[in-house]
Amino acid sequence: MNAPPLRRILETALYIEDLDAAETFYRDALGLEVIMRTDGRDVFFRCGDSMLLIFNPHVSAVPEHRVPTHGAHGPGHMAFGADAAGLEAWRARLQEHGIPIERDIEWPNGARSIYFRDPGDNSIEIATPSLWNLA
Amino acid sequence: MNAPPLRRILETALYIEDLDAAETFYRDALGLEVIMRTDGRDVFFRCGDSMLLIFNPHVSAVPEHRVPTHGAHGPGHMAFGADAAGLEAWRARLQEHGIPIERDIEWPNGARSIYFRDPGDNSIEIATPSLWNLA
Repeated sequence: MNAPPLRRILETALYIEDLDAAETFYRDALGLEVIMRTDGRDVFFRCGDSMLLIFNPHVSAVPEHRVPTHGAHGPGHMAFGADAAGLEAWRARLQEHGIPIERDIEWPNGARSIYFRDPGDNSIEIATPSLWNLA
Repeated sequence: MNAPPLRRILETALYIEDLDAAETFYRDALGLEVIMRTDGRDVFFRCGDSMLLIFNPHVSAVPEHRVPTHGAHGPGHMAFGADAAGLEAWRARLQEHGIPIERDIEWPNGARSIYFRDPGDNSIEIATPSLWNLA
């Protein structure tokens, strides 16, 4: 049977035990819209046409919900895309919010990435899509 | 300083120790294009306008690369988006590949999700974007 190519990532998940800190960080510092919060378990954000899901891994790993269990420990990773001017503006905004820039990389192909940490110690990146030769 | 809203997730990461199994699974069963492989450390796939990055967490957590360290253990989660017909076709294709469907959920708003596991025990979902009221 022919299944259509998977061309879209709809949900990206990270794990943070302190959901209050997670909500404050992603809502206030990163400006994402909170779509849903289930106290103690998760807080979900919209990011354009996709979702960033933050789970408390101790709770999402308990088989008490309809959905399959999961829950990772240790620092994860994800990247937002922004154009070069947007990335520069985000660098300034993060500094205004007291969020240290852990690394600022100019890639051989001219792309650029900045990296910082969220309250769960996840490595968060903002990168120009040209990093992957994406528009 | 005004930073433009973050409207795009460019990279989603999961962790799998066995990168050969990861590559076979995501390339052959899920049909994603391999963009890059660094033996022992990672294998990167394109999915439409974004990237799915698979890391061996034992290696990505070692501070020997230019990029910040990260590396999570335990099952993570992500979801691909597909329309209703595509999701049905994927259900069949997964079964052809011997991949068990762990859960098949019809949501109250008419959206649907199927869940299965990748070789790292990550909980992978294919969902209709209407789950989040996204087009």
